[in-house]
Amino acid sequence: MKVGDRHYRSLWTEQPGGPVHIIDQTRLPHAFETRALDSLEAVAEAIVSMRVRGAPLIGVSAAFGIALAMARDASDEALAHAATRLGATRPTAVNLAWAIARMRTALAGLTPAERASAAWFQAQAIADEDAALNEAIGRHGVALLEREHAAHGRPVNVLTHCNAGWLACVDWGTALSPVFQAHDKGIPVHVWVDETRPRSQGLLTAWELAGHGVPHTLVADNAGGHLMQHGKVDLVIVGADRVTRKGDVANKIGTYLKALAAHANGVPFYAAVPTPTIDWEIDDALSGIPIEERGAEEVRVVRGLDGAGRVQAVEIAPATTAVANPAFDVTPASLVTGILTEKGLFPAKETALLALYPRDRQSKAFLT
Amino acid sequence: MKVGDRHYRSLWTEQPGGPVHIIDQTRLPHAFETRALDSLEAVAEAIVSMRVRGAPLIGVSAAFGIALAMARDASDEALAHAATRLGATRPTAVNLAWAIARMRTALAGLTPAERASAAWFQAQAIADEDAALNEAIGRHGVALLEREHAAHGRPVNVLTHCNAGWLACVDWGTALSPVFQAHDKGIPVHVWVDETRPRSQGLLTAWELAGHGVPHTLVADNAGGHLMQHGKVDLVIVGADRVTRKGDVANKIGTYLKALAAHANGVPFYAAVPTPTIDWEIDDALSGIPIEERGAEEVRVVRGLDGAGRVQAVEIAPATTAVANPAFDVTPASLVTGILTEKGLFPAKETALLALYPRDRQSKAFLT
Repeated sequence: MKVGDRHYRSLWTEQPGGPVHIIDQTRLPHAFETRALDSLEAVAEAIVSMRVRGAPLIGVSAAFGIALAMARDASDEALAHAATRLGATRPTAVNLAWAIARMRTALAGLTPAERASAAWFQAQAIADEDAALNEAIGRHGVALLEREHAAHGRPVNVLTHCNAGWLACVDWGTALSPVFQAHDKGIPVHVWVDETRPRSQGLLTAWELAGHGVPHTLVADNAGGHLMQHGKVDLVIVGADRVTRKGDVANKIGTYLKALAAHANGVPFYAAVPTPTIDWEIDDALSGIPIEERGAEEVRVVRGLDGAGRVQAVEIAPATTAVANPAFDVTPASLVTGILTEKGLFPAKETALLALYPRDRQSKAFLT
Repeated sequence: MKVGDRHYRSLWTEQPGGPVHIIDQTRLPHAFETRALDSLEAVAEAIVSMRVRGAPLIGVSAAFGIALAMARDASDEALAHAATRLGATRPTAVNLAWAIARMRTALAGLTPAERASAAWFQAQAIADEDAALNEAIGRHGVALLEREHAAHGRPVNVLTHCNAGWLACVDWGTALSPVFQAHDKGIPVHVWVDETRPRSQGLLTAWELAGHGVPHTLVADNAGGHLMQHGKVDLVIVGADRVTRKGDVANKIGTYLKALAAHANGVPFYAAVPTPTIDWEIDDALSGIPIEERGAEEVRVVRGLDGAGRVQAVEIAPATTAVANPAFDVTPASLVTGILTEKGLFPAKETALLALYPRDRQSKAFLT
């Protein structure tokens, strides 16, 4: 997506073998700085310190971390070391483990001499596939905005929570992909951006939208219900960390409150996800999806620019204050209008979502 | 209520004529500092700079401002000047105008020689009446917590939003009055404290509860729905800026989202208000109650302690980011289990609330 006049991905390369360029997300939204990563260690550091963040981007970064390692030493030992090193950077990112496993599978059968170029090709493929998935989500989703605009003849008001934009992916994003594509097609769109305490990922969403020229307004997380009561929201689109086969949506804490308000006020509520995010195993989302409890510091300490333009942390509550910080919540399918995927829009119902059940798993199921 | 071992009101005096002591609320929750106000100007400055805040406390402070003025000069001119000066301190506080009018009425017919002591007596009466109202709200409300404790045999989990505690009043508070009284009676109670962005009044609530020894946990505003889904909230109690005769509740932005979640999860939701907060005129709350739109800085700038222990402001979003900041929302009566007043608990229904219609207004209605 655009930052000023230039199109960026959240990670890009200029030539095989490196370096890999990233946007340093620890500096956003206060400063736009890119970094060139030229080694396994540089990639690992970027993941650990959250210069790159978002499950898809972490996976792609790890794939390029292995590719950079192979460019220096393509031995079996170096491959095993790279996989172990990168696998330990973040504890719970599913895409991270998946990308590392895919790289190992692709490289294991090759001779060391073949590995460097194959690794680069494979990492690039993972990045391109992610961008293509998200482009397709937006292509299907743009119809929702087109319909609202046609119905009202004024800018379409979208509310979103957290950051499900291109910074978390490679390009386009999930929830924001339809927004960017609608804007690019000339459909007037305005986005209400939830701040998304405690980590305030809404600031990244606002930064993305500003860079691409999409009108938007930042609001406290408390404001969404009031906006919907007063007809100021046409549709809600969020991303999701996990969607169950029944259509329950696990996403950033607070999503559930917006879904309740949308339902109460007749506002459609969509979760935009690539189909690999659908979890086919879990039966009861509320009891079955583990909700990460994160540290108190995220609530107690806020970062921003001080008067001298330096990023500074301030403590809003004393260290003696007990804090609970659940990071996600579950929105029951009954509040979800539809699941927007790269294969189209589906009702949040088991009967509908089963059409998305992976073919390879279906055949496995037949075999056993 | 207690701060450490000592009982405080939010404003107190030691002898007629002054000074008037306050807790400097601009320093909370980071530091507990009291100030002695010895003049009209000192009181006006304390209101303007929000050293005292909360509609009831602002009214009481203004009453004492007039009393301090009368101690120096009890002429008609001095009385008129004090009323004008204090009336201009905050634009919209209803209690402010009400307290000033009450002081003027009480003093107008007196000679200057009588005014100083009469003013002091009257201001003290306003303060004591406020404390008595809130004590009575708590006395009626404590039964709700007792019942929950009896039903479950474990600490009662209350969720509250914003600060409806004693700092905003003279003593006890509204929503927190039942909590303090339950704690004092030995009923185990734990409070989930919503941060309440953008002004983070939850930090004041946490400070009050800590001072009085009530167990509590600070959470981001986004967390409440998740807590209720998992049975971690037994009841919600909030204050209110206005309650309509139909039982609709206007309160701090975000209250509506918690009421939706409470309703969806079978959690009782109460608004605690003194009966003068009931608005008998407004018919349709959503269209009839003006919602104050406050400045963008409240969202964009966060205050806290820096590493050196100084209060510092940091900018979390750039000045170029558009911000909307509605300060209140309306919770429809259908989501409200009951209105808790100094006269008892009433269903949020016009038929029930009419029992609270002021007698003096009833007789006026008969006369016209």
